[in-house]
Amino acid sequence: MSHPLRVAIAGLGTVGTGVVRLIETNRDMIAARAGRPVEIVAVTARDRSRQRPVDLDRYAWADDTLALAARPDVDVVVELIGGADGAALDLARAALTQGKGLVTANKAMVAHHGLDLAETAAASGAPFAFEAAVAGGIPVVKGLREGTAANALTRIYGILNGTSNFVLSEMERTGAEFGAMLAEAQAKGFAEADPSFDIDGVDAAHKLAILAAIGFGTRIDFAAVRTEGIARVRASDIAQADTLGYVVRLVGVAALEPAADSTSRLLQRVRPCLVPFRHPLAAVTGATNAVVAEGDFSGRLLFQGAGAGDRPTASAVVADLIEIARGQCGAPFSVPVSALAACPPADPGDRIGRDYIRFTVADRPGVLAEITAAMRDADVSIESLIQRGRAAEGEAVQVAMVTHEGPERCVAMALELLRDTPSLTEAPLVMPILSD
Amino acid sequence: MSHPLRVAIAGLGTVGTGVVRLIETNRDMIAARAGRPVEIVAVTARDRSRQRPVDLDRYAWADDTLALAARPDVDVVVELIGGADGAALDLARAALTQGKGLVTANKAMVAHHGLDLAETAAASGAPFAFEAAVAGGIPVVKGLREGTAANALTRIYGILNGTSNFVLSEMERTGAEFGAMLAEAQAKGFAEADPSFDIDGVDAAHKLAILAAIGFGTRIDFAAVRTEGIARVRASDIAQADTLGYVVRLVGVAALEPAADSTSRLLQRVRPCLVPFRHPLAAVTGATNAVVAEGDFSGRLLFQGAGAGDRPTASAVVADLIEIARGQCGAPFSVPVSALAACPPADPGDRIGRDYIRFTVADRPGVLAEITAAMRDADVSIESLIQRGRAAEGEAVQVAMVTHEGPERCVAMALELLRDTPSLTEAPLVMPILSD
Repeated sequence: MSHPLRVAIAGLGTVGTGVVRLIETNRDMIAARAGRPVEIVAVTARDRSRQRPVDLDRYAWADDTLALAARPDVDVVVELIGGADGAALDLARAALTQGKGLVTANKAMVAHHGLDLAETAAASGAPFAFEAAVAGGIPVVKGLREGTAANALTRIYGILNGTSNFVLSEMERTGAEFGAMLAEAQAKGFAEADPSFDIDGVDAAHKLAILAAIGFGTRIDFAAVRTEGIARVRASDIAQADTLGYVVRLVGVAALEPAADSTSRLLQRVRPCLVPFRHPLAAVTGATNAVVAEGDFSGRLLFQGAGAGDRPTASAVVADLIEIARGQCGAPFSVPVSALAACPPADPGDRIGRDYIRFTVADRPGVLAEITAAMRDADVSIESLIQRGRAAEGEAVQVAMVTHEGPERCVAMALELLRDTPSLTEAPLVMPILSD
Repeated sequence: MSHPLRVAIAGLGTVGTGVVRLIETNRDMIAARAGRPVEIVAVTARDRSRQRPVDLDRYAWADDTLALAARPDVDVVVELIGGADGAALDLARAALTQGKGLVTANKAMVAHHGLDLAETAAASGAPFAFEAAVAGGIPVVKGLREGTAANALTRIYGILNGTSNFVLSEMERTGAEFGAMLAEAQAKGFAEADPSFDIDGVDAAHKLAILAAIGFGTRIDFAAVRTEGIARVRASDIAQADTLGYVVRLVGVAALEPAADSTSRLLQRVRPCLVPFRHPLAAVTGATNAVVAEGDFSGRLLFQGAGAGDRPTASAVVADLIEIARGQCGAPFSVPVSALAACPPADPGDRIGRDYIRFTVADRPGVLAEITAAMRDADVSIESLIQRGRAAEGEAVQVAMVTHEGPERCVAMALELLRDTPSLTEAPLVMPILSD
């Protein structure tokens, strides 16, 4: 067996200690599969004195994070510090510039700086891999880079944030409201103290932008991802969706859409959606993630598993290390970064689809007529409409509808027509219906 | 861009012509992702004159299959002839011996001769890949070789035969019997004229043996797969399962089980099973395939998609070609074939689990007492029992039960006690309940 792959780990939180534990636990198996041992030589973290569930004494401790990347006895740096910029980015750049491999679980950094880092990697010939940055333990980066490599992909979509999915599926299971289920997620450790990146869809948007680049061969365009979180979804929306044959899921969708000039446009959105009961994503509950890739030859492929957690994420980090040890780590975005196409964002108004729209209305005569007139004037055709009387005096009344298939710009126009009416007591909630 | 990867295709049935069409359709994309063009240089099939949906005039035609492997202008041979032995195996051996890469969709050949072929490939340094041999377009071979490479896998299981799954899920949907739904599958082109390999579980067993070798690092042991098909499953079994909260699926299960002497035993079985409604495999209907891998760090990963068909299978074949063009094709079974362990088969009697057992009984006094006494004497604990009266005079009466968790040998013993009783009018049907 040849020389070991020598690894430095920066960041020793749950994922970092998970990686240490995994490399120690499955040492022989990893060596057999990688063709050579994978050995940790040095580690670092902000606070050396912190109690950790693994023994780090056998590894060199680096006080200076950047010094890790300069060590002559290190082949690959594993960056688990987190954050799009700052120490993580400095380390990533330093490692790649010096020809060290870089493995990271940092979706924010890859979404913001992945192209720059890939260019640096290409220039120095260093491997750069980030399986763990997307959907935790699910090997979907490899799935797109290798499994679907023969296909023109038309759409990539999925459940990319475990916290949001836990909250939505618990709302569905218990009938409770968002706030209570978010609190439960926090109590169970599924949600951060500040859960805004999860709940607002930003975390899912990071992952979606990365998947779109790999799957479509386009330059990462995180800024173009239109993102809407789950905080406005109510128990009554979920109940309504259920009677119509749907569940509510936070779905990231990336699609390459033909434009009039025969070029393509890239649609990237993260939104709560109505998912038909029979669709595989409807069965995805709890903190699980799932990604669907639709290829012109493969058809619909589904990759599902744990989207977060120390052990699944460590599994993805070490899979990258094994790939590097094997010498099989190719272009991080499947094609050389210089070959990625700059693809303009699609106008979501062009999208043809069906929507669920929930209005919260004042309980007075003529409201329904006003809403339906606006729909008519904007050319929105209504498939079904449900108005439920309020349960108690003073409670808001809800009107929910599902539209027939049509361009989204018509729905937007209808809502614009209703924007200033005193009949609506709050902004309507629009959730697209996931098409097959 | 460097020199092309030059490919010869042997076998021009639906998959072969699908591969030709895919390489032609996605030519530029494949070249970008592979780093060089993938070009067909020669083709062959049994009957040159047959009408085919692709134009083959631009490729050299080889009258002699083996001559394909000898051509100096061929880098990789794609074997799509089929059959475990004969022309397919001769070609595969000839190609690898002469240092040509081999890509195949031939599960029977890999299940029977995969180790020999891998040894030949290792000796000549030729790449050998068979993504398309398992679960059609689903990249599960790569998923196990790369995605889960950091994990000790404990169990690999899934729905590995689209025809059987189509028949079972159509029986479930329509309430019809096996024979009628098999005829429908044949009419729709999902089943061969001779469907025995699909229906009897042999096709699934081929795939399971291959997955087990990759996932567990054990030598392929197809002969040790215990296989039972779906022909004995009745509409009434499916209805009974439904009332108990299960669907019936043909599931292949491979598990590495600890033995008393601290070595391991390999359990490999293909059987119709009861799958709980909430399990992801329960949602897999029609000709879809799905594979679950359970790793010690990754947790449960699911790979799902089209298990057959010309286009999905071609997607997998060309993914292998791209991997070879990239120079990233590693050991076919994840570790060198010489490192695969010979693992004795597990005694299924040791398996602890729950079973569904259906008895077809004579309608006379004392039958239930006789059955329940045999269960008691064999230490089988009954969780629930349903006897339905016959619908019409002369019809068989069915008694269905679900056992509490216990060793399978006890169930086998109970059935042995009942073997010669005239109370049973046919052999009981036992279906294990898939555990979480």
